[in-house]
Amino acid sequence: ESATEFKSQKVSLTQKLQDTEFRNQDLEAQLSDLELRLESSQQEREAFRNSLRSLLELLDGKIFELTELRDLLAKLLEGS
Amino acid sequence: ESATEFKSQKVSLTQKLQDTEFRNQDLEAQLSDLELRLESSQQEREAFRNSLRSLLELLDGKIFELTELRDLLAKLLEGS
Amino acid sequence: ESATEFKSQKVSLTQKLQDTEFRNQDLEAQLSDLELRLESSQQEREAFRNSLRSLLELLDGKIFELTELRDLLAKLLEGS
Amino acid sequence: ESATEFKSQKVSLTQKLQDTEFRNQDLEAQLSDLELRLESSQQEREAFRNSLRSLLELLDGKIFELTELRDLLAKLLEGS
Repeated sequence: ESATEFKSQKVSLTQKLQDTEFRNQDLEAQLSDLELRLESSQQEREAFRNSLRSLLELLDGKIFELTELRDLLAKLLEGS
Repeated sequence: ESATEFKSQKVSLTQKLQDTEFRNQDLEAQLSDLELRLESSQQEREAFRNSLRSLLELLDGKIFELTELRDLLAKLLEGS
Repeated sequence: ESATEFKSQKVSLTQKLQDTEFRNQDLEAQLSDLELRLESSQQEREAFRNSLRSLLELLDGKIFELTELRDLLAKLLEGS
Repeated sequence: ESATEFKSQKVSLTQKLQDTEFRNQDLEAQLSDLELRLESSQQEREAFRNSLRSLLELLDGKIFELTELRDLLAKLLEGS
Protein backbone atom coordinates (compact mmCIF):
# COMPACT_ATOMS: atom_id res chain seq x y z
CA GLU A 1 0.00 0.00 0.00
CA SER A 2 1.06 3.53 -0.67
CA ALA A 3 1.54 6.15 2.01
CA THR A 4 -1.53 7.98 0.66
CA GLU A 5 -3.68 4.90 1.16
CA PHE A 6 -2.37 4.45 4.71
CA LYS A 7 -3.09 8.11 5.43
CA SER A 8 -6.64 7.78 4.15
CA GLN A 9 -7.19 4.63 6.23
CA LYS A 10 -5.77 6.37 9.30
CA VAL A 11 -8.16 9.30 8.86
CA SER A 12 -11.09 6.94 8.40
CA LEU A 13 -10.13 4.80 11.42
CA THR A 14 -9.58 7.86 13.59
CA GLN A 15 -13.05 9.16 12.64
CA LYS A 16 -14.69 5.77 13.32
CA LEU A 17 -12.88 5.52 16.65
CA GLN A 18 -14.07 8.97 17.64
CA ASP A 19 -17.70 8.14 16.68
CA THR A 20 -17.52 4.92 18.65
CA GLU A 21 -16.09 6.73 21.65
CA PHE A 22 -18.87 9.34 21.48
CA ARG A 23 -21.45 6.59 21.30
CA ASN A 24 -19.66 5.00 24.25
CA GLN A 25 -19.89 8.14 26.36
CA ASP A 26 -23.55 8.46 25.47
CA LEU A 27 -24.23 4.86 26.47
CA GLU A 28 -22.35 5.30 29.73
CA ALA A 29 -24.40 8.40 30.49
CA GLN A 30 -27.64 6.54 29.73
CA LEU A 31 -26.51 3.62 31.87
CA SER A 32 -25.59 5.87 34.74
CA ASP A 33 -28.95 7.64 34.47
CA LEU A 34 -30.84 4.37 34.39
CA GLU A 35 -28.91 3.03 37.37
CA LEU A 36 -29.82 6.14 39.33
CA ARG A 37 -33.49 5.77 38.36
CA LEU A 38 -33.50 2.10 39.33
CA GLU A 39 -31.86 2.85 42.64
CA SER A 40 -34.24 5.72 43.35
CA SER A 41 -37.16 3.51 42.34
CA GLN A 42 -35.97 0.81 44.77
CA GLN A 43 -35.60 3.36 47.55
CA GLU A 44 -39.12 4.66 46.90
CA ARG A 45 -40.36 1.09 46.88
CA GLU A 46 -38.64 0.36 50.17
CA ALA A 47 -40.06 3.56 51.72
CA PHE A 48 -43.51 2.61 50.41
CA ARG A 49 -43.19 -0.88 51.89
CA ASN A 50 -42.08 0.54 55.24
CA SER A 51 -45.17 2.77 55.27
CA LEU A 52 -47.32 -0.26 54.50
CA ARG A 53 -45.63 -2.21 57.29
CA SER A 54 -46.50 0.58 59.75
CA LEU A 55 -50.04 0.52 58.40
CA LEU A 56 -50.20 -3.25 58.90
CA GLU A 57 -49.17 -2.79 62.53
CA LEU A 58 -51.84 -0.12 62.99
CA LEU A 59 -54.39 -2.48 61.44
CA ASP A 60 -53.27 -5.24 63.83
CA GLY A 61 -53.79 -2.83 66.71
CA LYS A 62 -57.30 -1.94 65.53
CA ILE A 63 -58.27 -5.59 65.08
CA PHE A 64 -56.96 -6.33 68.58
CA GLU A 65 -59.00 -3.44 70.02
CA LEU A 66 -62.13 -4.55 68.16
CA THR A 67 -61.61 -8.03 69.62
CA GLU A 68 -61.38 -6.54 73.13
CA LEU A 69 -64.61 -4.67 72.44
CA ARG A 70 -66.23 -7.89 71.20
CA ASP A 71 -65.13 -9.67 74.42
CA LEU A 72 -66.61 -6.81 76.45
CA LEU A 73 -69.96 -7.28 74.69
CA ALA A 74 -69.79 -11.06 75.21
CA LYS A 75 -69.09 -10.55 78.94
CA LEU A 76 -71.99 -8.09 79.24
CA LEU A 77 -74.27 -10.70 77.67
CA GLU A 78 -73.09 -13.53 79.93
CA GLY A 79 -72.89 -11.41 83.06
CA SER A 80 -76.54 -10.47 83.41
CA GLU B 1 -124.57 -7.64 126.08
CA SER B 2 -127.85 -6.48 124.72
CA ALA B 3 -129.20 -7.40 121.30
CA THR B 4 -128.75 -3.77 120.28
CA GLU B 5 -125.05 -3.90 121.10
CA PHE B 6 -124.63 -7.15 119.16
CA LYS B 7 -126.41 -5.63 116.20
CA SER B 8 -124.16 -2.59 116.26
CA GLN B 9 -121.04 -4.79 116.44
CA LYS B 10 -122.33 -6.92 113.56
CA VAL B 11 -122.83 -3.84 111.35
CA SER B 12 -119.38 -2.55 112.24
CA LEU B 13 -117.71 -5.93 111.59
CA THR B 14 -119.56 -6.36 108.31
CA GLN B 15 -118.38 -2.91 107.18
CA LYS B 16 -114.79 -3.61 108.18
CA LEU B 17 -114.85 -6.97 106.40
CA GLN B 18 -116.17 -5.36 103.26
CA ASP B 19 -113.44 -2.68 103.35
CA THR B 20 -110.78 -5.33 103.86
CA GLU B 21 -112.14 -7.38 100.98
CA PHE B 22 -112.11 -4.33 98.71
CA ARG B 23 -108.53 -3.59 99.71
CA ASN B 24 -107.81 -7.26 99.00
CA GLN B 25 -109.22 -7.08 95.50
CA ASP B 26 -107.26 -3.94 94.86
CA LEU B 27 -104.02 -5.58 96.05
CA GLU B 28 -104.66 -8.65 93.91
CA ALA B 29 -105.23 -6.43 90.88
CA GLN B 30 -101.99 -4.53 91.58
CA LEU B 31 -100.11 -7.81 92.06
CA SER B 32 -101.47 -9.23 88.84
CA ASP B 33 -100.55 -6.04 86.99
CA LEU B 34 -97.04 -6.03 88.40
CA GLU B 35 -96.54 -9.72 87.53
CA LEU B 36 -97.53 -8.96 83.95
CA ARG B 37 -95.16 -6.01 83.82
CA LEU B 38 -92.31 -8.09 85.23
CA GLU B 39 -92.99 -10.88 82.76
CA SER B 40 -93.22 -8.46 79.86
CA SER B 41 -90.04 -6.74 81.03
CA GLN B 42 -88.25 -10.12 81.11
CA GLN B 43 -89.50 -10.98 77.63
CA GLU B 44 -88.28 -7.60 76.32
CA ARG B 45 -84.97 -8.19 78.02
CA GLU B 46 -84.64 -11.63 76.47
CA ALA B 47 -85.51 -10.24 73.02
CA PHE B 48 -82.97 -7.45 73.54
CA ARG B 49 -80.31 -9.98 74.53
CA ASN B 50 -81.07 -12.13 71.50
CA SER B 51 -80.62 -9.07 69.27
CA LEU B 52 -77.30 -8.36 70.99
CA ARG B 53 -76.22 -11.98 70.49
CA SER B 54 -76.92 -11.64 66.74
CA LEU B 55 -74.95 -8.39 66.77
CA LEU B 56 -72.05 -10.13 68.54
CA GLU B 57 -72.00 -12.79 65.81
CA LEU B 58 -72.01 -10.09 63.13
CA LEU B 59 -69.14 -8.35 64.94
CA ASP B 60 -67.25 -11.67 65.07
CA GLY B 61 -67.75 -11.99 61.32
CA LYS B 62 -66.44 -8.47 60.68
CA ILE B 63 -63.37 -9.03 62.86
CA PHE B 64 -62.70 -12.30 61.01
CA GLU B 65 -62.99 -10.52 57.66
CA LEU B 66 -60.70 -7.69 58.80
CA THR B 67 -58.18 -10.33 59.87
CA GLU B 68 -58.35 -11.94 56.41
CA LEU B 69 -57.76 -8.50 54.89
CA ARG B 70 -54.81 -7.98 57.24
CA ASP B 71 -53.34 -11.33 56.16
CA LEU B 72 -53.79 -10.30 52.52
CA LEU B 73 -51.79 -7.12 53.16
CA ALA B 74 -49.10 -9.09 55.03
CA LYS B 75 -48.85 -11.55 52.10
CA LEU B 76 -48.59 -8.69 49.61
CA LEU B 77 -45.73 -7.23 51.64
CA GLU B 78 -43.88 -10.53 51.93
CA GLY B 79 -44.54 -11.64 48.37
CA SER B 80 -42.76 -8.88 46.50
CA GLU C 1 -132.86 -12.62 115.97
CA SER C 2 -131.84 -13.99 119.29
CA ALA C 3 -128.74 -12.98 121.20
CA THR C 4 -127.31 -16.45 120.54
CA GLU C 5 -127.67 -16.02 116.83
CA PHE C 6 -126.04 -12.59 116.97
CA LYS C 7 -123.14 -14.04 118.97
CA SER C 8 -122.60 -16.82 116.48
CA GLN C 9 -122.62 -14.33 113.59
CA LYS C 10 -120.14 -12.10 115.41
CA VAL C 11 -117.73 -15.02 115.91
CA SER C 12 -118.02 -15.99 112.30
CA LEU C 13 -117.54 -12.40 111.05
CA THR C 14 -114.55 -11.86 113.34
CA GLN C 15 -112.94 -15.03 111.99
CA LYS C 16 -113.59 -14.05 108.38
CA LEU C 17 -112.21 -10.55 109.00
CA GLN C 18 -109.05 -12.00 110.50
CA ASP C 19 -108.55 -14.37 107.55
CA THR C 20 -109.03 -11.52 105.13
CA GLU C 21 -106.57 -9.35 107.03
CA PHE C 22 -103.98 -12.16 106.97
CA ARG C 23 -104.50 -12.57 103.24
CA ASN C 24 -104.12 -8.79 102.99
CA GLN C 25 -100.77 -8.78 104.77
CA ASP C 26 -99.56 -11.62 102.57
CA LEU C 27 -100.59 -9.74 99.41
CA GLU C 28 -98.89 -6.57 100.61
CA ALA C 29 -95.70 -8.52 101.28
CA GLN C 30 -95.84 -10.09 97.81
CA LEU C 31 -96.50 -6.68 96.24
CA SER C 32 -93.62 -5.10 98.10
CA ASP C 33 -91.30 -7.93 97.04
CA LEU C 34 -92.39 -7.66 93.41
CA GLU C 35 -91.92 -3.90 93.44
CA LEU C 36 -88.38 -4.36 94.73
CA ARG C 37 -87.67 -6.96 92.04
CA LEU C 38 -89.05 -4.70 89.32
CA GLU C 39 -87.04 -1.75 90.57
CA SER C 40 -83.86 -3.83 90.83
CA SER C 41 -84.53 -5.23 87.34
CA GLN C 42 -84.90 -1.69 85.98
CA GLN C 43 -81.68 -0.60 87.69
CA GLU C 44 -79.85 -3.60 86.20
CA ARG C 45 -81.33 -2.77 82.83
CA GLU C 46 -80.21 0.85 83.07
CA ALA C 47 -76.70 -0.22 84.13
CA PHE C 48 -76.61 -2.69 81.22
CA ARG C 49 -77.70 0.04 78.80
CA ASN C 50 -75.07 2.42 80.14
CA SER C 51 -72.42 -0.25 79.55
CA LEU C 52 -73.73 -0.72 76.01
CA ARG C 53 -73.63 3.05 75.44
CA SER C 54 -69.96 3.10 76.48
CA LEU C 55 -69.36 0.17 74.15
CA LEU C 56 -71.08 2.05 71.31
CA GLU C 57 -68.75 5.01 71.88
CA LEU C 58 -65.74 2.68 71.85
CA LEU C 59 -67.03 1.15 68.59
CA ASP C 60 -67.44 4.64 67.13
CA GLY C 61 -63.82 5.36 68.07
CA LYS C 62 -62.58 2.16 66.43
CA ILE C 63 -64.53 2.87 63.23
CA PHE C 64 -63.09 6.38 63.17
CA GLU C 65 -59.56 5.01 63.61
CA LEU C 66 -60.08 2.40 60.87
CA THR C 67 -61.26 5.22 58.58
CA GLU C 68 -58.09 7.19 59.35
CA LEU C 69 -56.08 4.09 58.52
CA ARG C 70 -58.04 3.68 55.28
CA ASP C 71 -57.29 7.32 54.37
CA LEU C 72 -53.61 6.69 55.09
CA LEU C 73 -53.61 3.76 52.65
CA ALA C 74 -55.45 5.84 50.03
CA LYS C 75 -52.88 8.63 50.40
CA LEU C 76 -49.98 6.18 50.08
CA LEU C 77 -51.54 4.88 46.85
CA GLU C 78 -52.09 8.33 45.40
CA GLY C 79 -48.78 9.77 46.61
CA SER C 80 -46.36 7.56 44.70
CA GLU D 1 5.94 9.82 8.20
CA SER D 2 7.19 6.58 6.85
CA ALA D 3 5.00 3.73 5.67
CA THR D 4 6.16 1.69 8.67
CA GLU D 5 4.94 4.34 11.05
CA PHE D 6 1.56 4.56 9.27
CA LYS D 7 1.23 0.75 9.44
CA SER D 8 1.99 0.75 13.15
CA GLN D 9 -0.56 3.52 13.74
CA LYS D 10 -3.15 1.64 11.66
CA VAL D 11 -2.66 -1.50 13.75
CA SER D 12 -2.90 0.46 16.96
CA LEU D 13 -6.04 2.35 15.79
CA THR D 14 -7.70 -0.85 14.60
CA GLN D 15 -7.03 -2.46 17.98
CA LYS D 16 -8.38 0.56 19.87
CA LEU D 17 -11.48 0.67 17.66
CA GLN D 18 -12.16 -3.00 18.29
CA ASP D 19 -11.77 -2.54 22.05
CA THR D 20 -14.11 0.41 21.98
CA GLU D 21 -16.66 -1.52 19.92
CA PHE D 22 -16.52 -4.44 22.38
CA ARG D 23 -17.01 -2.02 25.27
CA ASN D 24 -19.89 -0.55 23.28
CA GLN D 25 -21.59 -3.92 22.83
CA ASP D 26 -21.14 -4.60 26.52
CA LEU D 27 -22.68 -1.24 27.45
CA GLU D 28 -25.61 -1.82 25.11
CA ALA D 29 -26.21 -5.22 26.67
CA GLN D 30 -26.09 -3.71 30.17
CA LEU D 31 -28.44 -0.92 29.11
CA SER D 32 -30.89 -3.34 27.56
CA ASP D 33 -30.80 -5.51 30.69
CA LEU D 34 -31.35 -2.51 32.94
CA GLU D 35 -34.25 -1.28 30.79
CA LEU D 36 -35.88 -4.68 31.10
CA ARG D 37 -35.37 -4.69 34.86
CA LEU D 38 -36.80 -1.19 35.17
CA GLU D 39 -39.80 -2.10 33.06
CA SER D 40 -40.37 -5.31 34.98
CA SER D 41 -40.00 -3.41 38.26
CA GLN D 42 -42.62 -0.89 37.09
CA GLN D 43 -44.99 -3.68 36.08
CA GLU D 44 -44.54 -5.34 39.47
CA ARG D 45 -45.15 -2.01 41.13
CA GLU D 46 -48.31 -1.45 39.12
CA ALA D 47 -49.55 -4.97 39.96
CA PHE D 48 -48.75 -4.34 43.62
CA ARG D 49 -50.64 -1.05 43.56
CA ASN D 50 -53.64 -2.71 41.91
CA SER D 51 -53.68 -5.33 44.67
CA LEU D 52 -53.54 -2.53 47.25
CA ARG D 53 -56.41 -0.75 45.51
CA SER D 54 -58.52 -3.91 45.76
CA LEU D 55 -57.54 -4.16 49.41
CA LEU D 56 -58.57 -0.54 49.97
CA GLU D 57 -61.99 -1.29 48.48
CA LEU D 58 -62.33 -4.34 50.74
CA LEU D 59 -61.39 -2.19 53.73
CA ASP D 60 -64.00 0.39 52.68
CA GLY D 61 -66.56 -2.41 52.59
CA LYS D 62 -65.61 -3.63 56.07
CA ILE D 63 -65.77 -0.10 57.53
CA PHE D 64 -69.19 0.36 55.94
CA GLU D 65 -70.40 -2.93 57.43
CA LEU D 66 -69.01 -2.04 60.88
CA THR D 67 -70.89 1.27 60.62
CA GLU D 68 -74.13 -0.60 59.82
CA LEU D 69 -73.49 -2.80 62.86
CA ARG D 70 -72.86 0.31 64.97
CA ASP D 71 -76.16 1.80 63.77
CA LEU D 72 -77.91 -1.46 64.66
CA LEU D 73 -76.55 -1.23 68.21
CA ALA D 74 -77.57 2.44 68.46
CA LYS D 75 -81.10 1.56 67.30
CA LEU D 76 -81.35 -1.29 69.83
CA LEU D 77 -80.34 1.15 72.56
CA GLU D 78 -82.84 3.79 71.51
CA GLY D 79 -85.66 1.36 70.74
CA SER D 80 -86.21 -0.11 74.18
